[in-house]
Amino acid sequence: MTKNQALLDLEIDRNVLADDETLAIVAQALRTCLRDGDKKTLRAFLDSQEPADIATILDTLEAAEALAAMRHVDLYEQAQIFGYLDPEYQIELSDLMGRRELARLMSAMSHDERVDLFKNLDPVAREAVLPGLAKAERDDLRKLASYPEDTAGSIMTSDYATLTPDMTAKEAIEALRNQALDAETVYQAYIIDEERQLVGVISLRDLIVARANARVRNLMDTNPVFIRAEADREEAAQIISRYDLIALPVINGGDKLVGIVTQDDAMDVQEQEATTDFHKVGTVSGLKANVRDASIFVLYRARIVWLVLLVFGNIFSGAGIAFFEDTIAAHLALLFFLPLLIASGGNAGAQSATLMVRALATGDVRMSDWASVLGREFATALLLGLTMAAAVSLIGVLRAGPDIALVVALSMVAIVLVGAMIGMSLPFVLSRLKLDPATASAPLVTSIADVTGVLIYFTIATQVLAMQAT
Amino acid sequence: MTKNQALLDLEIDRNVLADDETLAIVAQALRTCLRDGDKKTLRAFLDSQEPADIATILDTLEAAEALAAMRHVDLYEQAQIFGYLDPEYQIELSDLMGRRELARLMSAMSHDERVDLFKNLDPVAREAVLPGLAKAERDDLRKLASYPEDTAGSIMTSDYATLTPDMTAKEAIEALRNQALDAETVYQAYIIDEERQLVGVISLRDLIVARANARVRNLMDTNPVFIRAEADREEAAQIISRYDLIALPVINGGDKLVGIVTQDDAMDVQEQEATTDFHKVGTVSGLKANVRDASIFVLYRARIVWLVLLVFGNIFSGAGIAFFEDTIAAHLALLFFLPLLIASGGNAGAQSATLMVRALATGDVRMSDWASVLGREFATALLLGLTMAAAVSLIGVLRAGPDIALVVALSMVAIVLVGAMIGMSLPFVLSRLKLDPATASAPLVTSIADVTGVLIYFTIATQVLAMQAT
Repeated sequence: MTKNQALLDLEIDRNVLADDETLAIVAQALRTCLRDGDKKTLRAFLDSQEPADIATILDTLEAAEALAAMRHVDLYEQAQIFGYLDPEYQIELSDLMGRRELARLMSAMSHDERVDLFKNLDPVAREAVLPGLAKAERDDLRKLASYPEDTAGSIMTSDYATLTPDMTAKEAIEALRNQALDAETVYQAYIIDEERQLVGVISLRDLIVARANARVRNLMDTNPVFIRAEADREEAAQIISRYDLIALPVINGGDKLVGIVTQDDAMDVQEQEATTDFHKVGTVSGLKANVRDASIFVLYRARIVWLVLLVFGNIFSGAGIAFFEDTIAAHLALLFFLPLLIASGGNAGAQSATLMVRALATGDVRMSDWASVLGREFATALLLGLTMAAAVSLIGVLRAGPDIALVVALSMVAIVLVGAMIGMSLPFVLSRLKLDPATASAPLVTSIADVTGVLIYFTIATQVLAMQAT
Repeated sequence: MTKNQALLDLEIDRNVLADDETLAIVAQALRTCLRDGDKKTLRAFLDSQEPADIATILDTLEAAEALAAMRHVDLYEQAQIFGYLDPEYQIELSDLMGRRELARLMSAMSHDERVDLFKNLDPVAREAVLPGLAKAERDDLRKLASYPEDTAGSIMTSDYATLTPDMTAKEAIEALRNQALDAETVYQAYIIDEERQLVGVISLRDLIVARANARVRNLMDTNPVFIRAEADREEAAQIISRYDLIALPVINGGDKLVGIVTQDDAMDVQEQEATTDFHKVGTVSGLKANVRDASIFVLYRARIVWLVLLVFGNIFSGAGIAFFEDTIAAHLALLFFLPLLIASGGNAGAQSATLMVRALATGDVRMSDWASVLGREFATALLLGLTMAAAVSLIGVLRAGPDIALVVALSMVAIVLVGAMIGMSLPFVLSRLKLDPATASAPLVTSIADVTGVLIYFTIATQVLAMQAT
């Protein structure tokens, strides 16, 4: 017993859970408790931890062990812990549960997490679990599951608190007390009419500050911020961030209130979208899984298409070089500067594209700002190009004499300028074509800049060196 | 009057505010109201809009006009609107205000926004405004301003709600009612002892659900999640996201409660950090301003250092090519495949680096996962390299015959493999050296991969073609 007791004495700081060694010790202690049937220690330990942390610990156990441990907390906390587990692990655990146990757990989960789990279940498991749910829960599941992925509807939850306009503040607080256990957030309550149309919103703060007999009708905000269920989920996150909302009401085609998107879900969306954009700029596309857990094939698939496409893009650079074979054969010294010049155009272009892609994603820059941004990018790129020309012309003189130094300096200015213009314009053009600006990845911009760089360099070289020769 | 009335009739949908044309129309209508002294329309319009939207509209007006318009709403809303304005514009407006007006406005602002403004004021303005503030406000400002940038302390606010353990639920709700106008969030209340040490946390939800005479001591969570003031602000945002908190309490070295970080501020931090990482991967560093507003010099400075560094990196590639000049002169056909091969290594490396940098930033991958991630990256890169070798060897045979096709295919596999290993390892190495992994930018990885690509290609070419020749 003393050995198990050690589990409770462990100073489990939250940051320590990021450390694999501590995790392994905790997991081992949990296993010992389970084997010894030491329910008391187990419960005391689980009660002392946050659900998110318990999920992290369970994630390191075998599914059967995790399930056995989870059964030692009450249903409500089980549902919370379950909600923090990875989707794949949720399914693994679901498969081990009886269908009645699973149905009971799902009834206790928050509505948005329940529908996410439901969507991940295979069709047989779905059919098995449905009879165990109350009719209202089945209807709710079907309704929430019907919204397409990436819409506001797909991330909303239907457990929100509602009031009617004629309630007094006191009655409203009483109503919220009764809804508090079900509702995802009671801090914002939604006022609906007989047709479930959203007529106002009120915060619990305003309700407790108000006189007890004041009417909700006179206290509520009658012009609340809302979103339509079919809108992009990223837009929902942006609205929540912009207006500092705790929750955003979602209405359907008939203007009826159908759900809310909460701030914590908006944070998750924001992080996922940032990751997707980040990946796109590195030409990794459509990777939804965690890099640590993704299979080799999934990683391969997310990367091969762009790699092959870019190879074909670079054939044009090769063809460009081949076209100038005579000039090169006559001045092999030109080759020394080739990687440096074409890389500079690509790098300047990648910088511009990076700035634009992110600014368009966060809304810092809008399509209508195109002209002004282009003008300033031109000026910036000119300064950049001149600085870099100064840097390389010195190397040019030392290594290959003044003629080639002149060619290299002129080429540098032109290549940086063109590269930057390409990098800046591409995100705008993609956006105008209703494509994702993040497709203007650094490697894509680099490939395009490479081709133009080769052409600019050898064209200038051919002209200048021919002039010198005469 | 009818013309001004049109302002109120405008269907100002929130999404429409993203549209410059509508913004210009609204701004013009506001100007007309101001000129005509039509206070009634102005007030009705401003009352119907969210503070964040009013800030967007004011941003398009001249500072003097914006100030005149703002004066038509009450002080509390003025403070809210002001909080949504860009820092530079805040300073511009502050300069136009009398010091008493500014002090009054600052008194009404939320404590964290007030200290941000205070830090941005020039020393003269700071001294001028301090006497207009209450002593408690001055002390609060000095205390909040003392936390270094990028710490949890620098983004916290001091307007939180506190309770004592011996209160009943009813007394606690009454206490929150009295603090509600001040406190940034009353939905989480913090229980402190005589020494202001944090002993527990309770949600308003739990208070309203509890029996009226239950003691806070018995209702509160005695093991709350917290953060130290000197911790990284990014860590605060991650904790809030991980535990789905509305607010995170901040304690100082003496374990005393000194502030809270709210979820909406955490969202802003998350977005800013994602932008910084995004920029770093595109070799744009230290750009804090909005791209649309940044001066040409600021943009130049954020970009030139990396561009020049990378140029010198590429000199090694040039030197590599120069070293193999004999092989190249003998087989000019090799040049055709040069851009394609070295770009492929760089692209595969950029992909790996992108995946790792983001996974390390979000915590999806940890330092200890290094070995397993490396193993799977090797397998993935091998598959990628073989696929790409198959693609290019066809072109090789058609264009330059079987010998060079063989060289190109072998080089492709080796280059992609090495590029991917560099891209994957660099973020880990940087992280181990306590540097920001995001410094492993696509262009940096590409430059390193370029050099190794040149060496690999021409070494293989020299060997294979020499063998064929004998």
